[in-house]
Amino acid sequence: MSLVVVGSVAYDGVETPHGKVERMLGGACTYVALAASFFTEAAVVAVVGDDFAQEDTDLLASRGIDLAGLERVPGQTFFWSGVYSPDMNDRTTLRTDLNVFAGFNPKLPEHYRTQPYLLLGNIQPSLQRSVRTQMIAPRLVGGDTMNYWIRETRDDLLEALKTWDFLLVNDAEARQLSGQHNLRRAAQAIFEMGPQTIVIKRGEYGAVLFRPEGHFIVPGYLLDDVFDPTGAGDSFAGGFFGYVASRGLDIKDQTALPEIRRAVIYGSVMGSFCCEQFGVDRFRTLTRAEIDARFNEFKEFTCF
Amino acid sequence: MSLVVVGSVAYDGVETPHGKVERMLGGACTYVALAASFFTEAAVVAVVGDDFAQEDTDLLASRGIDLAGLERVPGQTFFWSGVYSPDMNDRTTLRTDLNVFAGFNPKLPEHYRTQPYLLLGNIQPSLQRSVRTQMIAPRLVGGDTMNYWIRETRDDLLEALKTWDFLLVNDAEARQLSGQHNLRRAAQAIFEMGPQTIVIKRGEYGAVLFRPEGHFIVPGYLLDDVFDPTGAGDSFAGGFFGYVASRGLDIKDQTALPEIRRAVIYGSVMGSFCCEQFGVDRFRTLTRAEIDARFNEFKEFTCF
Repeated sequence: MSLVVVGSVAYDGVETPHGKVERMLGGACTYVALAASFFTEAAVVAVVGDDFAQEDTDLLASRGIDLAGLERVPGQTFFWSGVYSPDMNDRTTLRTDLNVFAGFNPKLPEHYRTQPYLLLGNIQPSLQRSVRTQMIAPRLVGGDTMNYWIRETRDDLLEALKTWDFLLVNDAEARQLSGQHNLRRAAQAIFEMGPQTIVIKRGEYGAVLFRPEGHFIVPGYLLDDVFDPTGAGDSFAGGFFGYVASRGLDIKDQTALPEIRRAVIYGSVMGSFCCEQFGVDRFRTLTRAEIDARFNEFKEFTCF
Repeated sequence: MSLVVVGSVAYDGVETPHGKVERMLGGACTYVALAASFFTEAAVVAVVGDDFAQEDTDLLASRGIDLAGLERVPGQTFFWSGVYSPDMNDRTTLRTDLNVFAGFNPKLPEHYRTQPYLLLGNIQPSLQRSVRTQMIAPRLVGGDTMNYWIRETRDDLLEALKTWDFLLVNDAEARQLSGQHNLRRAAQAIFEMGPQTIVIKRGEYGAVLFRPEGHFIVPGYLLDDVFDPTGAGDSFAGGFFGYVASRGLDIKDQTALPEIRRAVIYGSVMGSFCCEQFGVDRFRTLTRAEIDARFNEFKEFTCF
């Protein structure tokens, strides 16, 4: 069963203490789909320019990703560049050229509309709502957002959230959205907005899954070296939702809770692999066996 | 079997977003001993002035803490005051009056010297060494330190560390001591200094236990309200070492590892309780049943 992913496919320029890459494949939709592809069939909805390289299309296709929804239009692909602080906990955006992404108006191919799983990447809430409406009867809808949309398009976002089963955000976004500093209170406030499953990503410190019945916390994987954290949160989303889709889960079902905890671990696993090389490079060689070995490592270093 | 704890017994003035207390019982030794007293017999080595209140002595005595090593001298007790940032992740020291603590020269009562467990609180490394020497043949020696000693008395500290079985520090201190930003590398560097068990406290994000065989990570407990984080790290140390002592563990023994993981959880439990009220107040009413219930909560929200 396919997971439909909407969001940006982009080129990124990234500088970390480990090096600098002028231009490489990036974008939230790219990371989500690549990470999810290790668990389930992913289908992307995005727009690129006529500069989008064949080798990048080939990489996505090689992972079995459905590209019917990857629109190609005249112009340049979305470009973002940034530089990380020495400890990589902060980053400064150097350039954001929306390019063809500025006119993105996602239209779902007919065969996407009947799929059961939909992940709304971090784009304008009005577009997230449009995509949601195009799906016939998805079993599960989840989404991401960011500070800009929370601040500038709050009403639209609140409208969109009403129809989401889960929300994946980082801790700063959860606090901004809810107006609550305390994460438990923030989650309570977000439950009232719609999503009954909330995954709060905490960067190197891991993630917290909140449900009305309780919460689950996973610490971050301690990497020997973080080469490039770009895309780690999106890879988390791909691993999480990819695993949910691979198991055919209904996240709203209470009996699925043990599986949803495992999905949070798979999300953490994919986020950790993402940081091991620049951009999407780690996903070029990663195997399912390596993923499962790291899943077991999580059990080993958290169990008591 | 007793746990001997050396460090400061003090008065603190604390301001957090939840309120302000001008003067209350504090000090690392106080928090460690109170937290440990829920698991084992604790015996303190510290100095106070003639202003030290009978009710504070009574509180320590009521928890069965051995006060034979609590020296009382003319003058004022160590006083510290600070104010926390709105999110309580930072604090600014307003005042540090060493008072009688400036002349602290710990002398262990005879019956302390044969005890099996010794915790060297955060004081001058030269005093930590002097106390270590006064113990006959302790089964386990652990200690804490801070940025000031790492910077100003590094050689003394490195000499002290050679005889410690474990080190309890926060992440910033581990990085400063080792010169390594990455926690795994920091732990590797510290192993070479002596301690083969390292517990790195990460504030609200929990703690990591490092041993040459591997590591164990526990996330922080999500409190509904953090009233006052003062003493949380010391309460962690007390819970950790108190549990180790209560089980008669030799931390160097590999077969003790599952118990040592549990000790890290008990440390986390005690740190979390400490934050629920101002100063040591939570320890006035806390029960072992509440401690064990929270231990089980840790299992519930981390297990998968």
